[in-house]
Amino acid sequence: MVEMVHALQDEICEAVGIIDENHYREDLWDREEGGGGRSRVFSDGKVFEKAGINVSVVHGTLSPEAAKKMGGGHNLDENDLDFFATGISLVLHPHNPMAPTVHANYRYFERGAGEVEGSWWFGGGSDLTPSYLFPEDAIHFHQIHKDACDRHPIADYNRFKTWCDSYFHIPHRKEGRGVGGIFFDNIHGESKQECFEFVNDCAHQFLSAYIPILKRRMDLPYTDENKKWQMIRRGRYVEFNLVYDRGTKFGLTTNGRIESILMSLPLTARWEYCHEVSVGSEEERLLDVLQNPVDWLGG
Amino acid sequence: MVEMVHALQDEICEAVGIIDENHYREDLWDREEGGGGRSRVFSDGKVFEKAGINVSVVHGTLSPEAAKKMGGGHNLDENDLDFFATGISLVLHPHNPMAPTVHANYRYFERGAGEVEGSWWFGGGSDLTPSYLFPEDAIHFHQIHKDACDRHPIADYNRFKTWCDSYFHIPHRKEGRGVGGIFFDNIHGESKQECFEFVNDCAHQFLSAYIPILKRRMDLPYTDENKKWQMIRRGRYVEFNLVYDRGTKFGLTTNGRIESILMSLPLTARWEYCHEVSVGSEEERLLDVLQNPVDWLGG
Repeated sequence: MVEMVHALQDEICEAVGIIDENHYREDLWDREEGGGGRSRVFSDGKVFEKAGINVSVVHGTLSPEAAKKMGGGHNLDENDLDFFATGISLVLHPHNPMAPTVHANYRYFERGAGEVEGSWWFGGGSDLTPSYLFPEDAIHFHQIHKDACDRHPIADYNRFKTWCDSYFHIPHRKEGRGVGGIFFDNIHGESKQECFEFVNDCAHQFLSAYIPILKRRMDLPYTDENKKWQMIRRGRYVEFNLVYDRGTKFGLTTNGRIESILMSLPLTARWEYCHEVSVGSEEERLLDVLQNPVDWLGG
Repeated sequence: MVEMVHALQDEICEAVGIIDENHYREDLWDREEGGGGRSRVFSDGKVFEKAGINVSVVHGTLSPEAAKKMGGGHNLDENDLDFFATGISLVLHPHNPMAPTVHANYRYFERGAGEVEGSWWFGGGSDLTPSYLFPEDAIHFHQIHKDACDRHPIADYNRFKTWCDSYFHIPHRKEGRGVGGIFFDNIHGESKQECFEFVNDCAHQFLSAYIPILKRRMDLPYTDENKKWQMIRRGRYVEFNLVYDRGTKFGLTTNGRIESILMSLPLTARWEYCHEVSVGSEEERLLDVLQNPVDWLGG
């Protein structure tokens, strides 16, 4: 997994660098309590306002509260608070409001020696956050992930799709963060290899799930009003990440590297008091889908 | 108190309207569980990007968890979960990066009949958040509030000043939200009248504490770089409010009116990856003070 996330980071950064005609800034960081990471962030490129692709490999001892919150698995010796975690996490925010933001995260956790079933587990997923709705983009994104799930008996696209809608829900706004994708956690079983193969396959679908969408949208014309709406939607992205996202909250309270944790935040965001969309507008079409999650691949 | 917060809202809105050459939008709202509020927000005026002045008068029954978190007072019958609360809350965000954002909140809570000492209490305070530091502004703001505290035996400026620095601290940034002011909670005693008089006096200092500062700064020249720095600082404001502010968290989880709760957020905010200030710059001078709270009125 450690090898995989590093190789995938290289692959995705290369693809983003070519499209963005830009170079990333790389920061290698150590975590005082054990391990560290490699953060790479593209700023102000041709296509992306901000694009962060981060890997980390950390280990240490959990506080009893953190251990409780972490959950995952079963069969855990509650006194064994040693943990190991590795993963890749990325968020790409394009300039063009017609091009969606995308997020992906694939991770592996271990408690104690990580050998007994239940003491290790995988999690992950990827989701799409458009400011303007192009149903064919959502369908393509979901189809690629469904295909990956369908190749692995331990995966279940329908369950992971619903899980994604429910995880990325913003209760105080009564809307989803985006048009979903898949989300899964606590994936374990008899064969660690089998689980890894699913996660590996899924993670490697990232470029084919996102890049074709990006290429279709990144050069579309747009107005100042479209850009304002994108900034309002990015305000909602900030609300979700700071108020609800488990990874962000975990990072903020466990002395993680702040700039790596908050690289997911957009370059700019906007909060207008009582902003309302016009009846019949494209903005209203998006909101409707965020308030009523769609089964993109049909019933 | 109910009368006071409404009259004060009128007074502050009138003063802001004259300076801003603008009219507020007023929303009267009801809370399903009991009570409601009057929100007034100025948008895109001459001086303010966004300025919200909200009053509310709410009552109902607390959940046992909410009651525990609410704290305040003592002598409470734990089974009596009825509550009453009223207050004024305001946040003014000027356009000009040389002019500071200001926040004030004065509130009164009651549990049960609110007659026994400990079953009612006051809270409040006001704090200043500049993007550029003018020490004389911080001194003026603190002096006005110290003078108000000094007029009332139940108030203690030094304690409330320290409380403010500690409440508005952003742990993950290791910095304060601004240059402080005063913050107090759970103010009770033998005489409710005495407590009210302090809160009333303090709340009525708002205009004399803030307006002279605003007038000195609102027309100063500034660059695009100054504006960018203001937006980065407003990003930190968003981080504090969404991650730590008790009022915001309480509102988001208790079905409050979202637009009134989040009116405190700035119109725009910015997150640059690994933003750094130049050595010896005005931006560094501000950060130094945020990282090391100053005793503005001398030792």
